[in-house]
Amino acid sequence: MNRRMIVFAIGKLLSMTGFLLFIPVMISFIYHESQGLYFGIVGAILLLLGFLISRKTPKKKNIYAREGFVIVALSWILVSAFSAIPYVLSGEIPRYVDAFFEMVSGFTTTGSSILTNIEGMSHTGLFWRSFTHWIGGMGILVFVIAFIPIASGRSMHILKAEVPGPVVGKLVSKVRATARILYVIYAALTVIEIVLLLFGGMPLFDSILNAFGTAGTGGFAIKNASIAAYHSAYFDVVITIFMILFGINFNLFYFILIGKVKDALRSEELHYYLGIIALCIIVITCNVLPTYKNVLEALRYAGFTVASTITTTGFVVVDYGKWPLLSQMIILVLTFVGASSGSTGGGIKISRIVMYFKSARKELRKALHPHSVQTVEFENQPIDGNVISSIQGYLVIYLIIFVVSLLILSCYKIDFASAFSAVATCLNNVGPGMNVVGPVGNFSSLSDVSKLVLSFDMLAGRLEIFPMLLVFAPSSWRK
Amino acid sequence: MNRRMIVFAIGKLLSMTGFLLFIPVMISFIYHESQGLYFGIVGAILLLLGFLISRKTPKKKNIYAREGFVIVALSWILVSAFSAIPYVLSGEIPRYVDAFFEMVSGFTTTGSSILTNIEGMSHTGLFWRSFTHWIGGMGILVFVIAFIPIASGRSMHILKAEVPGPVVGKLVSKVRATARILYVIYAALTVIEIVLLLFGGMPLFDSILNAFGTAGTGGFAIKNASIAAYHSAYFDVVITIFMILFGINFNLFYFILIGKVKDALRSEELHYYLGIIALCIIVITCNVLPTYKNVLEALRYAGFTVASTITTTGFVVVDYGKWPLLSQMIILVLTFVGASSGSTGGGIKISRIVMYFKSARKELRKALHPHSVQTVEFENQPIDGNVISSIQGYLVIYLIIFVVSLLILSCYKIDFASAFSAVATCLNNVGPGMNVVGPVGNFSSLSDVSKLVLSFDMLAGRLEIFPMLLVFAPSSWRK
Repeated sequence: MNRRMIVFAIGKLLSMTGFLLFIPVMISFIYHESQGLYFGIVGAILLLLGFLISRKTPKKKNIYAREGFVIVALSWILVSAFSAIPYVLSGEIPRYVDAFFEMVSGFTTTGSSILTNIEGMSHTGLFWRSFTHWIGGMGILVFVIAFIPIASGRSMHILKAEVPGPVVGKLVSKVRATARILYVIYAALTVIEIVLLLFGGMPLFDSILNAFGTAGTGGFAIKNASIAAYHSAYFDVVITIFMILFGINFNLFYFILIGKVKDALRSEELHYYLGIIALCIIVITCNVLPTYKNVLEALRYAGFTVASTITTTGFVVVDYGKWPLLSQMIILVLTFVGASSGSTGGGIKISRIVMYFKSARKELRKALHPHSVQTVEFENQPIDGNVISSIQGYLVIYLIIFVVSLLILSCYKIDFASAFSAVATCLNNVGPGMNVVGPVGNFSSLSDVSKLVLSFDMLAGRLEIFPMLLVFAPSSWRK
Repeated sequence: MNRRMIVFAIGKLLSMTGFLLFIPVMISFIYHESQGLYFGIVGAILLLLGFLISRKTPKKKNIYAREGFVIVALSWILVSAFSAIPYVLSGEIPRYVDAFFEMVSGFTTTGSSILTNIEGMSHTGLFWRSFTHWIGGMGILVFVIAFIPIASGRSMHILKAEVPGPVVGKLVSKVRATARILYVIYAALTVIEIVLLLFGGMPLFDSILNAFGTAGTGGFAIKNASIAAYHSAYFDVVITIFMILFGINFNLFYFILIGKVKDALRSEELHYYLGIIALCIIVITCNVLPTYKNVLEALRYAGFTVASTITTTGFVVVDYGKWPLLSQMIILVLTFVGASSGSTGGGIKISRIVMYFKSARKELRKALHPHSVQTVEFENQPIDGNVISSIQGYLVIYLIIFVVSLLILSCYKIDFASAFSAVATCLNNVGPGMNVVGPVGNFSSLSDVSKLVLSFDMLAGRLEIFPMLLVFAPSSWRK
């Protein structure tokens, strides 16, 4: 274990975070708010701290999977932990556990909130909260890699743990260049969404923050009623489309950018992703039709909610807790499905789900024809047995974390549907769940232990589980 | 596909069932009840039908996995379908769907019931209902194999689909002898339990039927309040012990019988099985202690409920729906865990659960040390990669069936906890669930479609999923 390199990388990251914390300071000047002071103080401390611990570049720059996992996991924990401080100092979120939960939810682009009155927050506080989605969206470390070279040539390991989904495509040979390309696509899409929202008459501040929430597939709202507060079919449609876009594998945008449109459109994952979205929208629209004035209204709400859930954004335009159980169950299942690999979305990911189905079919065929050779293909390529056993192992660990979390939450006063959906929504980085933690509820009433467990789940879900488990495993730390 | 052999085997099986249906006829003579008539009629029809279609022994006796799976699945469906008829004819269960559900629940040793007044049933009807547990327990086909040679030497395929759990030990070289030994152990344990219950003052009829329910890990009660109706700590303790015994791999009893006690006690699955039971009893006892008079009472109810759930029996001595959520969640998790492989219990099975954990640990280690070679060991033997991928494929198919069932149940008026636990309890062959289908509820209020879906789940769970899927797959039927 190259501990020096870990400390060095985290030092660089803390400096970066310290630098970013001065953006809300500027926001506080614009709106004449006092909260910027606390962001400035913590920002300055992080800049100093980061400078001190990453002053010397380590001689041994090699890092491997272990170091990569530890850097990623510690980064997300530390950045969340430090970012929570300004909210406690300013008194906007008085309890530290709550502020930590909120920041983990932000950086992991989950969007589960403990705030009971979002509209009572300062512009400064709201800005940083939504900005964490945007930073978290593409991964703090892709961000960092694009600007700060920490371990030239070796940082693919970090990227592997960082970019969601089982398939990591090396777009170009250099990691930094990869990160930059992804980042430019990400920023460009965000700007387009901001412009479209402004065009529809949304205030600039709201447009920027809602675009941050969409881009990171985060879902922190800046209104108590989330996107429903705007009562605008235009905004609903724009956000629905952009949520779906941010749930697509970013490699595909790159392919389109370099003119390989056909290759992009041939993606098997894309077909399943869009197919599942279309199917669920149709079923839910039919199921909820009696509740609404006409088909278009039902379609608008069904479309938004399906897109918001499968991309794990978690914006809300309607209290789907009042929908028939079938629609609620489809939403619950989509919570687990998640978006495409290589997107900013969370969940198990379409590619894994497809491979689970294909490997299951393979096992069935094998049972019928024990001596035949069965292979699993994905994106027109045969999938190695090791990949299959790795994604199946992932499912098992995922379920273990799910069950243990559910048991811990059950130690406190809560009903089954709330506890079950709270774990589901956090582990899959969606945001809202059912009942107490439903679309019109929030996470404030849960116990502190539950909030910490759910914070762990959000981090585990966002970082594809392994880094979070390894950072807490004693064997990771042995030399 | 050797269709003639399938028809022949099923013919033999129907004759056997016809023969067994005369046992309730005798019961009806003892209690001077008229219901025996209908069992006699159906029994006679089955004897005739079975004789007609299995008159000629097929020339080609070879059967392979495909035929074995189809025979097993069709057997359970047909035997349940025919056994349901007497109840409809006698009017004791007027609707056929209900009677079919009840019989599937019986033969799959699930114990979920649609009866709202069990004590209003005739002795004849109650006897057959509990007797189906006993027959189902060791598998109709083990039963059949022991007495009727259908495909000499080849019937290991059937046994493989029949005896629950991933590991099938060939106790002795011949299948028939194996089946007989298991059957003798099974019968002996049942008789001992009957004697012990009689000794405590339980009426003979009740003792026999409750022993049937325990032996098959079925859980059909003959009182509305299940075992709670007897208000006897002695009965609770005896049944708890026997439920735990019937959840042990029967190979171990055989080892003890031939003097290899040490080998039996060294079983890794046994250690986990007993360890999980002990741990859950301790946690639940502590959790529910405030509700009861003293530790002994809490221990009695916790012990019975844990044993009843992990062995997937489903007898009830207490309304655990009123326990704190933590205890309810432990019970729900145990529903999925299930008993040992090679026992009469259902669920995912301890051996699979242990292998899931071990394969997950392997994947974690591999992530830490990508170039190291990691193996999974169980019962002191390295487990082949094919076995791991097969049991992981099982988990995936299991989850797919679970989700699809849940979605179908959600189409009808039901709450989340009821729907979720109904699928869980049926797919794992336990019996009671939560809320509407909870320990003091029943399945009568569900829609017909839900009852059929749950019947499929019970059969799929009992037959380790593959046979039920294959019998409905068109490719199974191609020549």
